[in-house]
Amino acid sequence: MKRIVFALVATGILAGATAYMAPASGQADGEAAPIYGIKVPAGYRDWQLISANHLMGGNVKQVRAQLGNDVAIKAFREGKLPFPDGAVIAALHWSEVLSDENNKVLDVGFPGAGLQSFVAGIPVNVQFMVKDTKKYAETGGWGYADFTNGKPGNEALHKTCFPCHEPAKDRDYVFTRYAR
Amino acid sequence: MKRIVFALVATGILAGATAYMAPASGQADGEAAPIYGIKVPAGYRDWQLISANHLMGGNVKQVRAQLGNDVAIKAFREGKLPFPDGAVIAALHWSEVLSDENNKVLDVGFPGAGLQSFVAGIPVNVQFMVKDTKKYAETGGWGYADFTNGKPGNEALHKTCFPCHEPAKDRDYVFTRYAR
Repeated sequence: MKRIVFALVATGILAGATAYMAPASGQADGEAAPIYGIKVPAGYRDWQLISANHLMGGNVKQVRAQLGNDVAIKAFREGKLPFPDGAVIAALHWSEVLSDENNKVLDVGFPGAGLQSFVAGIPVNVQFMVKDTKKYAETGGWGYADFTNGKPGNEALHKTCFPCHEPAKDRDYVFTRYAR
Repeated sequence: MKRIVFALVATGILAGATAYMAPASGQADGEAAPIYGIKVPAGYRDWQLISANHLMGGNVKQVRAQLGNDVAIKAFREGKLPFPDGAVIAALHWSEVLSDENNKVLDVGFPGAGLQSFVAGIPVNVQFMVKDTKKYAETGGWGYADFTNGKPGNEALHKTCFPCHEPAKDRDYVFTRYAR
């Protein structure tokens, strides 16, 4: 998961990356990420929700959501492992922001409860996992990509993806669980 | 926002509630919520993501996601206010769970950073806002509904919905902002 922080400092300078169109995700767009050659899948923001979570520690405070294309969502809902080729998972990470406007309302509704609402602020990065057992045979059948403002992170960043996901091998390298 | 906590203790005992099918959301299902007569819109879990957030304070620790039907999502993306009739917004709330499996990986990736991952656990409740300016003229054009395990909260709970949303009048009573 080093890519999470690396992405914050990644310069996005790349050379020789090859284009790759994610299966079942329409026309990909922009610059391809290194190693795996994945572009931002078109329409990923329209995909269905897998789950939401948040991350805290040090300077890192993020609200996060994971979306899946049709192939991925179907597999999640059916509890099907490994994920079939064509599955693509998107992880959207935003800096979290304490919402004063929400908190004012919470204070009225629950006086003294001290409820605090943290909402999605500035986008930090968007990450993708693309299942293609043939193309990505050496990395568990998954390709990985990390984008900040549409620009892919560098090669060093992308080298961290698979080692980080290896502990989730028994779940086909996917950490996120589907939230009912 | 009293309904958030009320929903945790709501008995779901209702009488005389009338069925209401949310426009543009397919066949609604189950028991109708009081006052507004809204049933759980069919297929709402397939709707697109508006945003994600989390709530902390006292015993309340929730991971949350808001989804919108096609009418709502289109309005959010276009920044269109007020929302047109037929817009339906779903707010999914889960108890948050500290993820040991994620944290182990984070510790390896970022030694000493103390990163903690909080994921969606048990569902707490699901809430809906249904726009129908004629039907819900007295409550800003919105009907409100709160369900826990598919059972609607009681009338007292649903009486708190509109007063809570009134401070967001300038945004057509909707607190959530679309996350890019």
